[in-house]
Amino acid sequence: MIVILRHGHTQEEFEKITKRIEDLGLTPHISKGKERTIIGVVGEDAIAHREQLELLPGVEKIIPILQPYKLVNREFKDTDTIVEVDGVRIGGNEIQVIAGPCSVEGREMLLTVARNIKGAGAKLLRGGAFKPRTSPYTFQGLGEEALLYLAEAKKETGLPIVTELMDPRDAELVYKYADVIQIGARNMQNFRLLKEVGGMNKPVLLKRGISATIMEFLMSAEYILSQGNQKVIFCERGIRTFETETRNTLDLSAVPVLKKLSHLPVIIDPSHGVGRWDLIDSMSKAAVAAGADGLMIEVHPTPEDALSDGPQSLRPERFAKLMEEIRAVARAVGRSI
Amino acid sequence: MIVILRHGHTQEEFEKITKRIEDLGLTPHISKGKERTIIGVVGEDAIAHREQLELLPGVEKIIPILQPYKLVNREFKDTDTIVEVDGVRIGGNEIQVIAGPCSVEGREMLLTVARNIKGAGAKLLRGGAFKPRTSPYTFQGLGEEALLYLAEAKKETGLPIVTELMDPRDAELVYKYADVIQIGARNMQNFRLLKEVGGMNKPVLLKRGISATIMEFLMSAEYILSQGNQKVIFCERGIRTFETETRNTLDLSAVPVLKKLSHLPVIIDPSHGVGRWDLIDSMSKAAVAAGADGLMIEVHPTPEDALSDGPQSLRPERFAKLMEEIRAVARAVGRSI
Amino acid sequence: MIVILRHGHTQEEFEKITKRIEDLGLTPHISKGKERTIIGVVGEDAIAHREQLELLPGVEKIIPILQPYKLVNREFKDTDTIVEVDGVRIGGNEIQVIAGPCSVEGREMLLTVARNIKGAGAKLLRGGAFKPRTSPYTFQGLGEEALLYLAEAKKETGLPIVTELMDPRDAELVYKYADVIQIGARNMQNFRLLKEVGGMNKPVLLKRGISATIMEFLMSAEYILSQGNQKVIFCERGIRTFETETRNTLDLSAVPVLKKLSHLPVIIDPSHGVGRWDLIDSMSKAAVAAGADGLMIEVHPTPEDALSDGPQSLRPERFAKLMEEIRAVARAVGRSI
Amino acid sequence: MIVILRHGHTQEEFEKITKRIEDLGLTPHISKGKERTIIGVVGEDAIAHREQLELLPGVEKIIPILQPYKLVNREFKDTDTIVEVDGVRIGGNEIQVIAGPCSVEGREMLLTVARNIKGAGAKLLRGGAFKPRTSPYTFQGLGEEALLYLAEAKKETGLPIVTELMDPRDAELVYKYADVIQIGARNMQNFRLLKEVGGMNKPVLLKRGISATIMEFLMSAEYILSQGNQKVIFCERGIRTFETETRNTLDLSAVPVLKKLSHLPVIIDPSHGVGRWDLIDSMSKAAVAAGADGLMIEVHPTPEDALSDGPQSLRPERFAKLMEEIRAVARAVGRSI
Repeated sequence: MIVILRHGHTQEEFEKITKRIEDLGLTPHISKGKERTIIGVVGEDAIAHREQLELLPGVEKIIPILQPYKLVNREFKDTDTIVEVDGVRIGGNEIQVIAGPCSVEGREMLLTVARNIKGAGAKLLRGGAFKPRTSPYTFQGLGEEALLYLAEAKKETGLPIVTELMDPRDAELVYKYADVIQIGARNMQNFRLLKEVGGMNKPVLLKRGISATIMEFLMSAEYILSQGNQKVIFCERGIRTFETETRNTLDLSAVPVLKKLSHLPVIIDPSHGVGRWDLIDSMSKAAVAAGADGLMIEVHPTPEDALSDGPQSLRPERFAKLMEEIRAVARAVGRSI
Repeated sequence: MIVILRHGHTQEEFEKITKRIEDLGLTPHISKGKERTIIGVVGEDAIAHREQLELLPGVEKIIPILQPYKLVNREFKDTDTIVEVDGVRIGGNEIQVIAGPCSVEGREMLLTVARNIKGAGAKLLRGGAFKPRTSPYTFQGLGEEALLYLAEAKKETGLPIVTELMDPRDAELVYKYADVIQIGARNMQNFRLLKEVGGMNKPVLLKRGISATIMEFLMSAEYILSQGNQKVIFCERGIRTFETETRNTLDLSAVPVLKKLSHLPVIIDPSHGVGRWDLIDSMSKAAVAAGADGLMIEVHPTPEDALSDGPQSLRPERFAKLMEEIRAVARAVGRSI
Repeated sequence: MIVILRHGHTQEEFEKITKRIEDLGLTPHISKGKERTIIGVVGEDAIAHREQLELLPGVEKIIPILQPYKLVNREFKDTDTIVEVDGVRIGGNEIQVIAGPCSVEGREMLLTVARNIKGAGAKLLRGGAFKPRTSPYTFQGLGEEALLYLAEAKKETGLPIVTELMDPRDAELVYKYADVIQIGARNMQNFRLLKEVGGMNKPVLLKRGISATIMEFLMSAEYILSQGNQKVIFCERGIRTFETETRNTLDLSAVPVLKKLSHLPVIIDPSHGVGRWDLIDSMSKAAVAAGADGLMIEVHPTPEDALSDGPQSLRPERFAKLMEEIRAVARAVGRSI
Repeated sequence: MIVILRHGHTQEEFEKITKRIEDLGLTPHISKGKERTIIGVVGEDAIAHREQLELLPGVEKIIPILQPYKLVNREFKDTDTIVEVDGVRIGGNEIQVIAGPCSVEGREMLLTVARNIKGAGAKLLRGGAFKPRTSPYTFQGLGEEALLYLAEAKKETGLPIVTELMDPRDAELVYKYADVIQIGARNMQNFRLLKEVGGMNKPVLLKRGISATIMEFLMSAEYILSQGNQKVIFCERGIRTFETETRNTLDLSAVPVLKKLSHLPVIIDPSHGVGRWDLIDSMSKAAVAAGADGLMIEVHPTPEDALSDGPQSLRPERFAKLMEEIRAVARAVGRSI
């Protein structure tokens, strides 16, 4: 941590600040320039005292040096973490594709999608049982009924299940059916929910909030790891910007940035990232080329009948074609699908 | 709802689209221009079928006409809603000030703040018992102990209590102590929590998410009203932009915009809005001039010792001075504090 | 400037970095923490060498300490600058209102507006001769003809003229007619144009770019001052965010922030800031309460006939009423209009 | 264009609005719903009257239907435009790479870079002669001297030159040396400059402003085409968002979006897009996979000595390696480099 003193601070202020630093058990290293005095503050967990120093008279600002995240930091663990789900390895050389409908609307549609995506090469099945919806008047998901259909689809196809947990009161129920528990973008900073899944022994797919910085994204993963659960998969799914041609702006640079800062796997959700089915193929190929460890794609047998996210869902045949295309890109960057 | 057809659509596409509209029990009104054909779609709840029409061949896009919010809409109720809390009326001519520490750090500090803000003219006491914190390693609030201190402070000063509910599992506990239940910015789209407070007979202070549009803000209030609870207070507290001089960008235009679109009261939280104590007086005066129904301000006896939000907290004497200043502005715009 | 070394840097890297610092004529001050080594770099214009140090092996990042702006910095000149235009003082206790049409559409309309705003208490007349328009197919301004009408309006009313310069090739022409030269938001980083007006002996009204940080805004003013012209007035007019209810998000916190960092006056343009005439009164009052030194407001005799910006223009009678309202707010904050 | 009437409008308002529409020579098509009346307005250039209708009593809002851009619209010309520069075709099956230093700092460094990038397979040489710099105190480019070095490098290597025009007063000079004239991000809405290059018979590389919507980007190209110059190349180079890990957020979805809306070629500048050399390879591969027609990459012989943009420049050997990698990705998507 570095303390920068105000231009024109008094000698008395300077002495009080250094004394306070020493009283906190920390060591000050002083550099006096012509225009500014700066104090390097060295010691265990110095940053915890940031706000206390920040308000002392004579202090202009504090600059932290160390990252506030620890367990998710690549400095802490420098080998890539591979999250294994029923034998499917996420974070290794093979790129994994998660596919399925936005929400489970019924038994038939789910089984149709599951068979199709399995045939096309997807390795996990997604489907929402509890849906966060902007309007209270729209379809909110089938709840436990959906979980039963997911279990049936898994039984038939062998595809492990990815489904969202929205409310800590559903934790037990979702835990029972899910192979990967999804934390949605709107809950990325629902810290109680993060602690809840942090206490579980099950992989967590953590979606980036639409206005979350990468730093905040890392800190949310830190919540989960700090409770003991190391199996976290990052999922970038678009951030909110001024642009309106797309639903969100898919931040593909998050892939290499996250992989440099952390050891955890990173996947991309192009369906929410752009919100338009006709852009999904471009963005899927780009995600693979950028180094993503996986993709999560919405597939619906008849998007025009979907109860949610129809405009960003692919038909099964289009999804199968996309799988072919991304396989070629994966090979070009030395990976497989 | 308006359906715009693609340039160069076929006659067959046109006919299928109009047939589908009629099959849905809706009435199409056709306007053929030189470049585009548009179809006005009239009928009960037409917009519910938006996504189904959007994906038909020949459709370029759909434009909704009606707002998706109903109960919060000024068209639904054209008189201002006044939310009453133990005799304090929020949304009327009198501007109400809510003050207190970010989090309740102990009994003494809370009582000190409560006495001071009461003396300066604040009408409600805020204080966090459960704190959403970006890092799992920082102070997370005293929990129920804090609620007991808040109750004691209320008993002594008579100030009603505003405190945050973060987790539906704490609903009963918070309900018992709070006079106004706060839903934090990070939970503005925690729809389960919104339904929970929607079922309570207690005022709700709903904070705007840092990346929420005003439309989404209105929809979140709609969740609460749709469950029966009409006592919602909007609180603008800064949105996330590219600017870094301030913690967030306080969107004061949200005050007149919300008051035009909705009948519910609107207050401003300048402390989070800018995140710097030295800007709070300017922004508080501006908020009152812009037409806000109230302010929520963080006050701490010794901000340099605060366990959270010290840099944006006012000392009691500064708060008292601010109260004098905003009283003058309130009078200038025909209101009182 | 502070150099932060990578976790796990080698001793050799450390030595090369310190040697390079010394070779540049600068002094390194070293603080070795458990996790990171940091080097305070002290010396004349150290920051100019930032990028050269940034790429040395072993360097994680560089943190600048001093602000890159000098002449606009309040540390450089700690008394408020007052820009005087024909006896109208901008930046003093009196708040000045600039009003007029977006673009000068004709002689009659301009004279009508000029008389009206003068009667209501405005002190300067604005009007565009050259208009930056998003579409090449819309009205682009009357050019020199408009300048002649502005001169006539000035002659009759005595109001000094504020008008925009868009192209360095028009500099002489605009210089001849304008009392204050406006640099529009789209040209805030047109550095050649900034240098051009920096060489003139005439006040400059510098509008903030819609995506400019306050730091960049200060740097653009620095361009002008660095050429010798000290008469710069900052004008905040809304920044681009995700919100769509308003044309831009008016960042009123820019007022106190700019006044703390710089000695130059700051005015607000609520017309462009929100882009809706029905919000201008709220935002004007808020701007005055926030501490703005002036306002710039679009007034048109018949907004429904305006060739540009009709939806954000006030009718003369509404403007007169607004002047009354902001006078009251000005008094409440100890200022006059 | 669609006119939406306010809830509760009067019959008289309705009649005045329809009369006004007819008086403007347009045809109103009326749809009366239970909650809203909407009027489809059909006729030549109806949208030009938007603001005039918008302010009539009873009107809630106007919704445009047609895009305001014409010549750049794919509806206007449905075959891909290929821009040819000295035999290099941009917009066809072959992906073209433009490389070179941010600014031409001297003769030797430029020749070194030119030879290297030519050897690695780049087809055009970039280099700035006039540099837009945030600070007036930093290197502003060598001006005409740089243009002479570029000419020499072209003579030796045969690589056509891409260089920026910042000021209309330099138009003749830059025209003489450049094979492609670059309009920088800060000048994307410098409409006078756009008109200037619109009148030239030379390809224009138009960079997207950091806060420009895709719609505004298209409109700026329309300025150029409307003056007769059809040879425009779009260049996405990052937009400004809240994220600070990268200098900008590279919006790769702009590639398919622009290609759907327009017939003009689209290239990507990953160097400015992310501002970090260590992310350029990921983002270059992603750009090619997303369908970009070219890349523009900053290369410097010794980035640690660069006078500008060192941190985002590649060394020649790294650039050569990158060329190999993107060739593989190009092949995977059916294209060549």
